[in-house]
Amino acid sequence: MIPRYARPQMTALWEPEARFKIWFEIEAHATEKLGELGVVPPSAAKALWDWWATNPAIDVPAIDAIEAVTKHDVIAFLTWVAEQVGDEARFMHQGMTSSDVLDTCLAVQLARAADILLDDLDKLLEVIKRRAFEHKFTPTIGRSHGIHAEPVTFGLKMAEAYAEFARCRTRLIAARAEIATCAISGAVGTFANIDPRVEEHVAEKLGLAVEPVSTQVIPRDRHAMFFATLGVIASSIERLAIEVRHLQRTEVLEAEEYFSPGQKGSSAMPHKRNPVLTENLTGLARMVRAYALPAMENVALWHERDISHSSVERYIGPDATITLDFALARLTGVIDKLLVYPERMMKNLDKMGGLVHSQRVLLALTQAGVSREDSYRYVQRNAMKVWESDGQLSLMELLKADPDVAAALSADQIAEKFNLDYHFKQVDTIFARVFGV
Amino acid sequence: MIPRYARPQMTALWEPEARFKIWFEIEAHATEKLGELGVVPPSAAKALWDWWATNPAIDVPAIDAIEAVTKHDVIAFLTWVAEQVGDEARFMHQGMTSSDVLDTCLAVQLARAADILLDDLDKLLEVIKRRAFEHKFTPTIGRSHGIHAEPVTFGLKMAEAYAEFARCRTRLIAARAEIATCAISGAVGTFANIDPRVEEHVAEKLGLAVEPVSTQVIPRDRHAMFFATLGVIASSIERLAIEVRHLQRTEVLEAEEYFSPGQKGSSAMPHKRNPVLTENLTGLARMVRAYALPAMENVALWHERDISHSSVERYIGPDATITLDFALARLTGVIDKLLVYPERMMKNLDKMGGLVHSQRVLLALTQAGVSREDSYRYVQRNAMKVWESDGQLSLMELLKADPDVAAALSADQIAEKFNLDYHFKQVDTIFARVFGV
Amino acid sequence: MIPRYARPQMTALWEPEARFKIWFEIEAHATEKLGELGVVPPSAAKALWDWWATNPAIDVPAIDAIEAVTKHDVIAFLTWVAEQVGDEARFMHQGMTSSDVLDTCLAVQLARAADILLDDLDKLLEVIKRRAFEHKFTPTIGRSHGIHAEPVTFGLKMAEAYAEFARCRTRLIAARAEIATCAISGAVGTFANIDPRVEEHVAEKLGLAVEPVSTQVIPRDRHAMFFATLGVIASSIERLAIEVRHLQRTEVLEAEEYFSPGQKGSSAMPHKRNPVLTENLTGLARMVRAYALPAMENVALWHERDISHSSVERYIGPDATITLDFALARLTGVIDKLLVYPERMMKNLDKMGGLVHSQRVLLALTQAGVSREDSYRYVQRNAMKVWESDGQLSLMELLKADPDVAAALSADQIAEKFNLDYHFKQVDTIFARVFGV
Amino acid sequence: MIPRYARPQMTALWEPEARFKIWFEIEAHATEKLGELGVVPPSAAKALWDWWATNPAIDVPAIDAIEAVTKHDVIAFLTWVAEQVGDEARFMHQGMTSSDVLDTCLAVQLARAADILLDDLDKLLEVIKRRAFEHKFTPTIGRSHGIHAEPVTFGLKMAEAYAEFARCRTRLIAARAEIATCAISGAVGTFANIDPRVEEHVAEKLGLAVEPVSTQVIPRDRHAMFFATLGVIASSIERLAIEVRHLQRTEVLEAEEYFSPGQKGSSAMPHKRNPVLTENLTGLARMVRAYALPAMENVALWHERDISHSSVERYIGPDATITLDFALARLTGVIDKLLVYPERMMKNLDKMGGLVHSQRVLLALTQAGVSREDSYRYVQRNAMKVWESDGQLSLMELLKADPDVAAALSADQIAEKFNLDYHFKQVDTIFARVFGV
Repeated sequence: MIPRYARPQMTALWEPEARFKIWFEIEAHATEKLGELGVVPPSAAKALWDWWATNPAIDVPAIDAIEAVTKHDVIAFLTWVAEQVGDEARFMHQGMTSSDVLDTCLAVQLARAADILLDDLDKLLEVIKRRAFEHKFTPTIGRSHGIHAEPVTFGLKMAEAYAEFARCRTRLIAARAEIATCAISGAVGTFANIDPRVEEHVAEKLGLAVEPVSTQVIPRDRHAMFFATLGVIASSIERLAIEVRHLQRTEVLEAEEYFSPGQKGSSAMPHKRNPVLTENLTGLARMVRAYALPAMENVALWHERDISHSSVERYIGPDATITLDFALARLTGVIDKLLVYPERMMKNLDKMGGLVHSQRVLLALTQAGVSREDSYRYVQRNAMKVWESDGQLSLMELLKADPDVAAALSADQIAEKFNLDYHFKQVDTIFARVFGV
Repeated sequence: MIPRYARPQMTALWEPEARFKIWFEIEAHATEKLGELGVVPPSAAKALWDWWATNPAIDVPAIDAIEAVTKHDVIAFLTWVAEQVGDEARFMHQGMTSSDVLDTCLAVQLARAADILLDDLDKLLEVIKRRAFEHKFTPTIGRSHGIHAEPVTFGLKMAEAYAEFARCRTRLIAARAEIATCAISGAVGTFANIDPRVEEHVAEKLGLAVEPVSTQVIPRDRHAMFFATLGVIASSIERLAIEVRHLQRTEVLEAEEYFSPGQKGSSAMPHKRNPVLTENLTGLARMVRAYALPAMENVALWHERDISHSSVERYIGPDATITLDFALARLTGVIDKLLVYPERMMKNLDKMGGLVHSQRVLLALTQAGVSREDSYRYVQRNAMKVWESDGQLSLMELLKADPDVAAALSADQIAEKFNLDYHFKQVDTIFARVFGV
Repeated sequence: MIPRYARPQMTALWEPEARFKIWFEIEAHATEKLGELGVVPPSAAKALWDWWATNPAIDVPAIDAIEAVTKHDVIAFLTWVAEQVGDEARFMHQGMTSSDVLDTCLAVQLARAADILLDDLDKLLEVIKRRAFEHKFTPTIGRSHGIHAEPVTFGLKMAEAYAEFARCRTRLIAARAEIATCAISGAVGTFANIDPRVEEHVAEKLGLAVEPVSTQVIPRDRHAMFFATLGVIASSIERLAIEVRHLQRTEVLEAEEYFSPGQKGSSAMPHKRNPVLTENLTGLARMVRAYALPAMENVALWHERDISHSSVERYIGPDATITLDFALARLTGVIDKLLVYPERMMKNLDKMGGLVHSQRVLLALTQAGVSREDSYRYVQRNAMKVWESDGQLSLMELLKADPDVAAALSADQIAEKFNLDYHFKQVDTIFARVFGV
Repeated sequence: MIPRYARPQMTALWEPEARFKIWFEIEAHATEKLGELGVVPPSAAKALWDWWATNPAIDVPAIDAIEAVTKHDVIAFLTWVAEQVGDEARFMHQGMTSSDVLDTCLAVQLARAADILLDDLDKLLEVIKRRAFEHKFTPTIGRSHGIHAEPVTFGLKMAEAYAEFARCRTRLIAARAEIATCAISGAVGTFANIDPRVEEHVAEKLGLAVEPVSTQVIPRDRHAMFFATLGVIASSIERLAIEVRHLQRTEVLEAEEYFSPGQKGSSAMPHKRNPVLTENLTGLARMVRAYALPAMENVALWHERDISHSSVERYIGPDATITLDFALARLTGVIDKLLVYPERMMKNLDKMGGLVHSQRVLLALTQAGVSREDSYRYVQRNAMKVWESDGQLSLMELLKADPDVAAALSADQIAEKFNLDYHFKQVDTIFARVFGV
């Protein structure tokens, strides 16, 4: 966890306090059900919950001190709770194994992390949607291979991003369901010493599904799928970040990360406004993506479990979720405040002197009866002049002045082919598909 | 594509013929709709389908020869079709861009590949299920950290695998939906020169969803999710493969890859039956997993598209699906014919002289009123003797002969703690969860 | 292997013929030494080499047919050779194990692949060097964060690439040494049935080092290092490819991939020259990088060997080397013929009306006794005017006309601060460091 | 950074104090040279070093507080130093850019990290060497595919590990040289405002090489190679860790991670000694390996630099080096104290009733004039009996009693074929190769 790339809510989820609180809830719910089943006295759960109702502080150093002796984190925690609650606490953990607590706790943590990330995505989607409608008909040049192609609108770019992050949202919901399972099944998953109804009870109370079959642990293909999904979401962040970085290039300058009016540019160069936030997002995406790999390597544990996954998860559990939370929030801020320059977009669009419309003219000539070969030659010879003028000449004017073209198309007909609106006639359709309105 | 790791059905999907056939279907369906919309003569589509009804061979070398001149694969194909169909063919591709054909074709190929993989998974699941019920109550030692823990059954191991691959199946269905979309939206996705209803028509005919918003291409987050899912499935293959490899180790030998009775072992050493199929699967899993990464790096294309994703997909499209298809089929064969040795399982289970039951005795002693400390000491001193005998002594017999233990528990009570069935009382519950029966 | 991304020389290395020829050489050299040591008759090696001197064709289908029966590739090959050579051939392979042949063969293949790649790098370096000197003093704007910073020369960009690929060359030489080892040490590497001098002899004859200690196989950390190095080289290819793609963007257009004068642009749009080669290189780099991972996962083979590495190497052995060879050659072609536009570079450099020189003016003012705060204010107010004019105004002219500035600096002094040569005074130094001249 | 997987010396390297100290040294050395060159007064450097000689504490919170205002880390630091040193400090950083400080500092940090890792490797090598000689002739079964093959010695296993980590050491020295370079070249690497001799001076003082050509930053292919090398080293750690995990499996139990005599096993099961340290190392290896990827993705920065690499390095700089340092030290501890059980090794070796020697008998029979087919049949029929007896019968005794075999070989000759020493006759040769003695 890198403090500068971390936000408090997500970070808190991975603090010892949070973990111990979840451990307590698991143990208390289990004890409750064990009481109902007559395995332990019903008073045990009551004692636990009564103490819990006092909202006791978790004394992490005290627990750590016990662990330093017992060399076992769950036992250390149970010992500390017993010191607080008294004799009734000895009934906790009956028939359970440490992994029951640890794995179910991880499920709760990852599910809560997913909830935060879903909230992040909702905020991002909202912002993107606003900018999409704001610029629904703001013309800008579409580029393939980094080269001018045909006109699009900035709103369409935003609509694409919206659709992409809406997909990410759907994926994250599925990924959350993958890891939100509860396993309380004992040393090798056979329920030899604990009734499956305890598992069902704890699962219900914690909002988890029951793990149908566990070994000692919850199977790690679930976590692999979860972290792989985060990697895909990070890749979508990278895509939008790189779009902004491109738009902010000095020669393009169609949009910029927000820069307050009074803010001082780098020294005396007012053009030196760097897209540092989106560059940062590009790097963060690389990290989240990298974490998918060890998660996949974690799947093939030996037999009923080995503990090689544990160290990996100590890294990637916090690192992937905290980084992605930060990145989504940062991206939301970038898009929210993005400075968009429609005039510059139009200027760039016109930069090629109307060449982006050459295809429409070509088509019109053939429809007006000119052979395809001649049509091509007429357009091409004028296009080349525009190109060689570096956009100083206008293709429309040259075409109007070309006798061969003029013989086939009137000046008005030619002018109509340079109408931007022609390209935007389906923007409503696309928006309806993406936003449902 | 490595021939020895490829099966014909999946490989055929990636052959030039298959691709050209899909291209034709896309173009013909589009022409059909363009005819309906009055953009081209209705006779155009008829001419195409009439020719198609003759089941014409695709002359790949002829198309390649045209491409060598035109330097453009889609134009080469259209030219060749026009040569076959005649004049009416000139109406094909009206208002479309090459990527409309290429990306929609890839969607069809990946969707069909997913169908094959789903079929593979069904076959694997069926085989695992059969072996699970066959060995539902075959006792075997459960191992955590590679060390004997408590008893499980071999059927439970199979049930775990079944549940895992059932999850893989669900994931693959979702991944298939991710990539099964159709985009016919023109040069930068604005439908400037083609009606969105063409896209809808082609999508419906090919069994695809409509891509709500495309640029020039279908967004690559879809493909990233698809290949990441294949990577997770591969990791589950690796897990089961490694389980078999472990079981086949000389010292364990609880199961073996099939070896026909007459088959000659490596030279004169009959024990030298190597788990080469599952070792092979371990390696193949590494490859499929590796392909997830470039797929994620493909997401951040520049602006409305760059073509950097294309070369990556030429590799991983075939390589990931062909390899995974082969691996699933190979794994199915391994599990189908796996030689399972229940006697050896029991022998290994007993190897520690009953130490795996020590916890139950410990619990029984405390329940019989012995203090936890004393209980532990009584069990431990006998357990150590068994351990030092390398499993030659029997814990049960030693405990019966231990006066302190005998004072608390009768011989029958002690013997009951060594009852394997105790561990299997929830196997029915687990099977019901996993198999629904 | 994707034919369109493959070149004949490297591909041939991975053909069955090439492999079988290396196998023969290994076996024949080994037999020769065994003859010297008196283990087999000296006539055996003579018979082998005599046959070999006839330059016999390798009948791959015949060998495959034998393998179909024996299920063992090395035995099939030996059988076929015996059929050709006659009785003396039975002394081949004495005391050896298949892996001795397979692993040593792989070493030869990878070493030869490395030689081809080194040759590729030499060609690339030569081309980069030529372009570097050609444009040693061609001014162009340096960009940090995609934003104009200060002037550099295009030759410096090439010098950076040269230095980077020279490092890649050094790395590849080290990587070649990693994998160029010979192991002929028998079933578990103990030389139980073969004299170590056989290994030494074969190593010497094949230009390999002796593997100091092998198990059944050559340790795979060597191969991991080899493929990781290829991944790093691929990343450097990506860097230069992305530089070209940026320079070719419509708004920048400082350089372009070669486009023959007569070549037709995409339809009627002459500006539509896409950097498809470098986009392709970007994708290829992703693949070569991806192959580093399974190579690293191959290291941890079980005990004296398992065969999980083998399938991985069947993919990445050819795929990584063939792809990288192709990519290096393609990049060489791109740089060799790159269209460089110095006028456009100068135009872009001037685009900001001289703002890139503002820092030097600032410094000059402070050195002329103006306070830092005032200096900043004077420069900043003029810089803002230039910025707002979108480069139409000239910073130099505005500064000359600013009374506060003029009070401190003469017009000549101001003009001197806009001298590009100031920035290039160390270009000779840098070139001397990089090229040694 | 995960505290439980971190050691103080390496962690300290990445603390703010350490970073600020290196910054100071860079600035002070640069100022010194600038003084010599007459660019700044020589008194400036003196003032800096005089202050430094007082061994001043670095007030990190104060520097952070300044950064909160200036939004620039290097300026904040310079400001704080100026507050301490006084007026002379204003000459610091003349003509330099922040990256000059940041990148050179990273070079120092990574070089020092490499030194710690090299020291770790030396300690590991020393321990492995000791165990290798201790068990030079301790017989143990060699296993291919997890299946018994032929005898090796435990010392040979250690020798293999020694050779592998010796290679890792060589690689790390090369990787250290990759990143140990100094760049003080100004805003875009042209030395426009700073003399290259300053760079040379600082490099020499800090023990770095001069970066021949930098942009604004040191090129990231260097760092990619560094982190890729760490990934390979981690993979070798994984290999040895997995060897220990295999040896400790209940059924194998040829070695165990250290377990103090008085230490309590998991509950009452003395066999439950889990190889948790090596399982942990397996997971840590996955992490270090994963970090190689974003390092490679960092190479292709845009033009003269973008800052996307920076966030990646904030993670992997500390995480990769701290984790690898911890892992190497942990592995050293594991090997140092590894409990090795020669008796169990021998017992396992004999487990197959001597089948591992069957090949030698086969060869002896053919050398005694028996046809290959008959030899095989004689050995095979006895081997099968041994195999079916699960190692209860002895192959040697059966062969002696087989009339066909006895007709060809005397009892002594047969017995000689079961001599383990036969397999170890080249151990001295191998040790001489690996250890030079």
